[in-house]
Order: sequence, then C-alpha cells, then structure tokens
Amino acid sequence: MKVVVVGAGLAGLSAARELHRAGAEVVVLEARDRVGGRVEGGEIAGCPIELGGTWIGEGHTRMHGLVDELGLETFRTWNDEGKMLIQLGGKRALVASTKGAVPRLNPVALADLAQGLARFGRLARSIDPARPWAHPKAHLLDGQTFETWVRRTLRTPSGRAYFRVATEAIFAADAGDFSLLHALFYAVSNTDLETLLAVDHGAQQDRVAGGSVLVAQRLADGLDVKVSTPVASVTHDDTDVAVTTRAGETFTADRVVVALPPTLAGRLLYDPVLPAWRDQLTQKLPAGTVAKTFAAYPTPFWREQGLNGQIASDTGPVKVTFDVSPPDGRTGVLLGFVEGSEARRWQRLPEAQRRQAVLDSFVRYFGPQAADPTAYAEKDWSAEEFTRGCYGAHFAPGVWTAYGDTLRPPIGRIHWAGAEYAIHWNGYMEGAVRSGSSTAQEILKR
Amino acid sequence: MKVVVVGAGLAGLSAARELHRAGAEVVVLEARDRVGGRVEGGEIAGCPIELGGTWIGEGHTRMHGLVDELGLETFRTWNDEGKMLIQLGGKRALVASTKGAVPRLNPVALADLAQGLARFGRLARSIDPARPWAHPKAHLLDGQTFETWVRRTLRTPSGRAYFRVATEAIFAADAGDFSLLHALFYAVSNTDLETLLAVDHGAQQDRVAGGSVLVAQRLADGLDVKVSTPVASVTHDDTDVAVTTRAGETFTADRVVVALPPTLAGRLLYDPVLPAWRDQLTQKLPAGTVAKTFAAYPTPFWREQGLNGQIASDTGPVKVTFDVSPPDGRTGVLLGFVEGSEARRWQRLPEAQRRQAVLDSFVRYFGPQAADPTAYAEKDWSAEEFTRGCYGAHFAPGVWTAYGDTLRPPIGRIHWAGAEYAIHWNGYMEGAVRSGSSTAQEILKR
Repeated sequence: MKVVVVGAGLAGLSAARELHRAGAEVVVLEARDRVGGRVEGGEIAGCPIELGGTWIGEGHTRMHGLVDELGLETFRTWNDEGKMLIQLGGKRALVASTKGAVPRLNPVALADLAQGLARFGRLARSIDPARPWAHPKAHLLDGQTFETWVRRTLRTPSGRAYFRVATEAIFAADAGDFSLLHALFYAVSNTDLETLLAVDHGAQQDRVAGGSVLVAQRLADGLDVKVSTPVASVTHDDTDVAVTTRAGETFTADRVVVALPPTLAGRLLYDPVLPAWRDQLTQKLPAGTVAKTFAAYPTPFWREQGLNGQIASDTGPVKVTFDVSPPDGRTGVLLGFVEGSEARRWQRLPEAQRRQAVLDSFVRYFGPQAADPTAYAEKDWSAEEFTRGCYGAHFAPGVWTAYGDTLRPPIGRIHWAGAEYAIHWNGYMEGAVRSGSSTAQEILKR
Repeated sequence: MKVVVVGAGLAGLSAARELHRAGAEVVVLEARDRVGGRVEGGEIAGCPIELGGTWIGEGHTRMHGLVDELGLETFRTWNDEGKMLIQLGGKRALVASTKGAVPRLNPVALADLAQGLARFGRLARSIDPARPWAHPKAHLLDGQTFETWVRRTLRTPSGRAYFRVATEAIFAADAGDFSLLHALFYAVSNTDLETLLAVDHGAQQDRVAGGSVLVAQRLADGLDVKVSTPVASVTHDDTDVAVTTRAGETFTADRVVVALPPTLAGRLLYDPVLPAWRDQLTQKLPAGTVAKTFAAYPTPFWREQGLNGQIASDTGPVKVTFDVSPPDGRTGVLLGFVEGSEARRWQRLPEAQRRQAVLDSFVRYFGPQAADPTAYAEKDWSAEEFTRGCYGAHFAPGVWTAYGDTLRPPIGRIHWAGAEYAIHWNGYMEGAVRSGSSTAQEILKR
C-alpha cells in the first residue's frame, strides 16, 4: 500500500512512521524546509528554546514513550523555587505553583472563583470528548460563548478576570471567540482545567532536553520526507489519490493523510471538491492568535526574588510567562506569551515597539533588571504561511453541534490528522501524536 | 492604469465597469464558465428562475438604477392576494404581508415579541454600520451569540421561535452561529429587521423580468471578462501585481481587486503572504448554508386558498417559502429555502430523499396539491466550488471587534470587493454593487 502524508508535523510524522512500520510505502510532503510544523527549535544566547510546542504533560504517555524510544530525555519545567505571581485588577498575589492553586483574593472573590471552577468542572465531566455534540444539552452549551458563561457564572471582577486570563493562556483566543461547549470539550480532553493550567502534574510538566523539535527530527529519520514541497491539490476517486505539489510534481498513492491545521487543509484544491459540510467545517475552524517572545539574561534573577518566573496577569501584552532557562540555570530565559486580542494589536506594531512592549511587561512583573536582556526573540505563529495561527483551531459557537461529526471521518481516500482531531490531549503534542497514530490505524484496518 | 479583477460577480463587474469607464485597462478573471457569481439564472417548466440572488429592495437605488440603465425591467414580488402563513409551535396563523406585521399570537407571546423587536431595533439604531466595532459596548455585544440575546430577551417559546426563524431566513445560519453585534450591524446596514423580512417596502420587493442574472450579463457586456479562468495566486509588491491562473497564465497590473467571498479570498496564494490579521480575518468569515429549492405546478393553486405563497415556519427542512411564479401567473412556482442546520442535515441526504423532504414541507404548508409538481429543481450553494456557501459570510462572536477594521482596507495593491464589504445593504445584490463601486473609487483616487 502506498500513502502520501501531507505535512511533517508530529501528527503527519507519527502517522507516516506507523504506516511505514506496518509495511506501507510512505512519502511525506512538507511545505517548509524543516520538519516539525508547529514544533520548531530555536536558540537564544546559546540556549535551545522552543519557538512552538514545548511541553509534555503528566499523562502524555505517547510523547513520554517516544522520548524514551528515540533516545531523548526530559527535564522538569522550572517550578521548584519561589512562587507564581498573579496580577488581577491591579493587585499582586503570590501563589504556590501547585496544581489547582488559586490566588489569594478577598473572601467574596475567592468564593466566587471556587464555585465557578466547581461548576465548570462538573459540566466538563459530563462531556464525552469523542462526541461533544451528543451531550443532551449540546445545543444550549454550543449556542453561547464561553464569555457569556463566565459573565453569568462569575460575579466578581477578579473571578471573571481569572477565567479570562486562563482562557487566553489555554486557547490563545478570547473567551468570546468560542463556545462554552468547546471550552468544556477542551478541558475534559485534557483531563480538566487545573491540569491545563498546571506545571507539576499538569500539561506543562516536562520539557525535552535539547528541545521538542528533536522528537520530530528523530521521528523523521528513516522516513521519506520531502521538505520544501508545498502541496497544491489532491485528486481522488474510488481507486487512488494523486497529490500534486505547487511545483507541479505528482505523487500517486492508495490513500492520503492530510496532516495540516484544518484551516490550511481547507485551502488545498480537491478534485472532486469536498462535500459541502466538510468544506464548511474548515471554514469554521480558525486558528488562535499567539506569539511567543523570549528574553535572555545573564542569570535567572527572578529566582532570587522568590519568583519562579510564572505569571498570570490581566494586563498585556504579555499576560503569561514561564521560566524556560536551560536546566543547568547557566542563563536566564523568560518566555512571554502574547495571545488573542493582545496579539492582534501587538502584531501590527513595528518590530522595535513589539520588543519594547514585551520588555515593558517583563519589567512590570520582574523589575528593572528585565529591561535589558542580552538577547530577545519572538515568533508570531499567525504570520507563518504554513501555519497561520496557534496553538490550534477553536470552535466558534454552533460549530461542534453542526459539524462535529464531520471532523474525523475520511472523505473517500482522504484521511485527516492533527492535534485538532485528537480525542484526548487535544491541542498538545501528545494529541498530535495520538491523532496521527489513530489515522494510521484507520488506514491499516481498510 | 491596469487593473485585474478576480471574480465576475456583481461586485467585481461593478468595479470593473466603473474602472473601465474611467479609462483603466481592466481584465476580469472568472473561475466559472459564466458571469454572475452568486447570481445565477435557471429555468423550471419554461419559466426563468433565480438560483441565487433574486431581490431588489426598496431603497436599493444602485440596482434600480442599473436595471434602468441596462434596459431591463422589474416587477413586484408576488404579494398581492392572500396572506402569509406563519407556523410556530404547531400553531398556524395567517398574517397580512405588510411590512412589520407579526403573527397573531396569544397576548403574552405578542407582548413578548413586541418588546423583543423594540429592544432589538433600539440597539440596532445605536450601531454605525461603517464601524460596528466602535460602539461603546461593542465588546459586550460581540462577546455573545445572537441566540444568547434571544434567550435572554424573549421569554415565550413563540417569541423565541419567531426570532430564530427570522434569523435563519436572513442569515442562512442559526442564531447561535454569529454574534449579537453582527445581527445588529446587518439589520442597520439594511435599515432594520422589518425591512429585511418584508416584501412590499422591504428587501424582497422587486424582481428583474427575465431574471437577475441579466444584470450581471449586461454589466459584463463590453468588458474583457475571461471565464473558466480560476485564479491561483497573487504576487504583489510596491510597483505592481501579477495574478496567475490555475492554468499558469499570468496577468500583470497596477492593482488587483479580489472580488470573491472572504473565505475564498483567503484561499488564494499571496506572495508575499497576507499579514496575520488579514489572513485570520478570512479564517473567521465562514459562509452561511442555504439551498434554494423550486417546484413548478400547472397553476399557482395556493392563491385560490387565500395564501400568497409566503411561509415562515419553525419546522423544516423548508421553513421559508415565496411565490416566484412568472409575472403573468401562467405557471405556479414555489421557492423553498433550506437553511442553516436544516441545510446541513438535508444536504447529506440522497437526491430523491432531498426532493421528497422539500415536497413534504410544501404539502404541509399548501396541501396535497403540492405533492406532485411538474418539475423540481434545487441549488445547494455550499456545494459550489467557487462559492462554498450563501448568502454570505457571518461574523462569529469576537470577529467584528477583533478584525472589523481590517475588513475593507487594501493590502498594498490588493483591494477587496463583495457583498460582505458593503456598509449599506450588506449581503444583497445592492451591497455587492455598492462595494464594487467603492473599491473602484478607492483605486481611482490613488
């Protein structure tokens, strides 16, 4: 059997590797001059950094398995000393970075936040992540934005602010951009909201020594991956598929795996065209908006201030930070996320102003020492031709219920893979690997 | 000056004509083998019908002007005799087809509906259709779905059902699919909700004798329109643009007008790529879902029953109908709209079942005589490669506020036109013509 895989991100590579191991003849066509897709390596002040997907969480069994199998190692995300700083409504609070910890707010806000988190958790547990649209109240949950739910459920400004900041950090989108049903699906797909937000025992627990891109690179070893080969069209019928590149080269196969973000999958030309519902699905799965920014310093000086480098703030452009210094701590590296509407404003600024705005945020959180890094780097994923937004797609209101059942099924000989298709650990590297693997199995079973 | 126009719908043709008249050298590249885009002529039982855009409303001055100028004539949409049938919650009510008429409901529901309409109208009048995002409460209005507003504002099942049916008819989408701000924008862009729903003195007042496609065909006369010429890519820099077709032919010009629905505009290849915010805008403007269905009968028999052929019902698949018989009434032709979630279910049925489901709806409204038409026709616009959904794009929550200001401005030498870009009469043929004209002026002023 011959299979063409379009896209050498973790989903495409995982699918290709599993098919190749099962004896299929597989070629992977990758638009970029590198493998990894939304996983990309970079460097700042001589230290490896992740420009894209970074973390392996607790319970990300496939990624941990791959790391072992590929001869790599993980290390813990810096979380050991000091506390996380939470800034909401102009007030600063230090919080221990333990899973589920909430900021010390006034008693009313604390009670409000606690009941909001409990209600969200109860609702999320009622969702089947394989079929969110099958929930008895799916239409009610999908007909409203998450913002509407936050406004109705949380009564205090601090409680609402906490949910909104968490939302931006998790979805790289504003709470008004997607439905309550999507928020619930995503939480339960990743266990719960607390797991999504946490470092230890959470989704940000571990990193790959040398950078997560090593996983993609080693997955690609031994596979026939053609880089710098963007695909233009897919012709398909009852017997085979023909995948043609922008340069005009055609690869024929029995099946094709389109392992692209949904919005880009919708931009390929298909002949015959995709059915209405599948095309409209891809029209309705926009990517989030996020830039990763990095500043390097001679030392991780914030650790001396009792801070662990993690921030959650309601004031941008950087509202969420992490300490991504190398494990030996020889250099200090801060990672700042610019997300959602903050990113849309920030990305229109000239380069020097973007940098200044990020450093101003860092100074606000970590003091004047943050003003003068030895190096600065940024990566705006929505500006990338072959991604056009991160971390992944979000489902606007109405989309899960109207199109959810069209997300995963193949169209004839065209199969789909990517972090957006994962039932468990959706949106993470783990979800991408699981989706690629599921799609490979779907093909091998035919 | 040389201009390439991509798309020979009413917007592209209007822009091309205005530029041509001002002395520019204009070529129009059209993917289909015909002009008109979302305006298309058809025929049933020997009578011309509109498979796409149909109506010229009161106040649609540009379209009325074009009809005169192009030597065409209009006639009134059938509305003269009999009454409109409204079916909500299993109850049937006949209503005079006058603008703003509401169904005779029980007093509680009627009061509920009246206050809902009044509140919607007041809110809509506070929106500037040129800049909906500038409203002082824009974020609040854009952070919720229209469905959320309907649920909160209307208290009776009949009142809510009325708003939902009206929504589907107006947007070809469900009230949960787009934001309250978009609903308000669209209403005020088209004067008000009552105008959008009305025939006489409303948006469905007039039709073009022989079919609306004649407007497009006559606009194209004397223009250099190349049909069957789908465009693949747009290369642009500070001095000119080069537009390359899928067949590999390149047209160079000073400027290009991309007169495609936003979701298709986003699928062209741009070199350099579009800025992040413009690309993400097109990711977030999905098209509605609608099929037009037609059944022809020896006579317009419903007129004898005291019905004028107009239905608004909360039971699908056809929830809205019109009498589109030829003006001489020699044959009876019913038009049934299948919209939003109804369309998404219906379009997946085999052809025979689709037809039967439509006729079952017609029988439910017009009695057993509707069961056996002399001819049947249908057009699912979301299945069309070069449209992928009608009537037009809707703005999901968060999109107007995050991306509204990026909708109309050109990107360098790339300009935009289409019914989605119109400030007034957005979504109608009138809006397409106005947008094309505005874009031509924008270019001529440079």
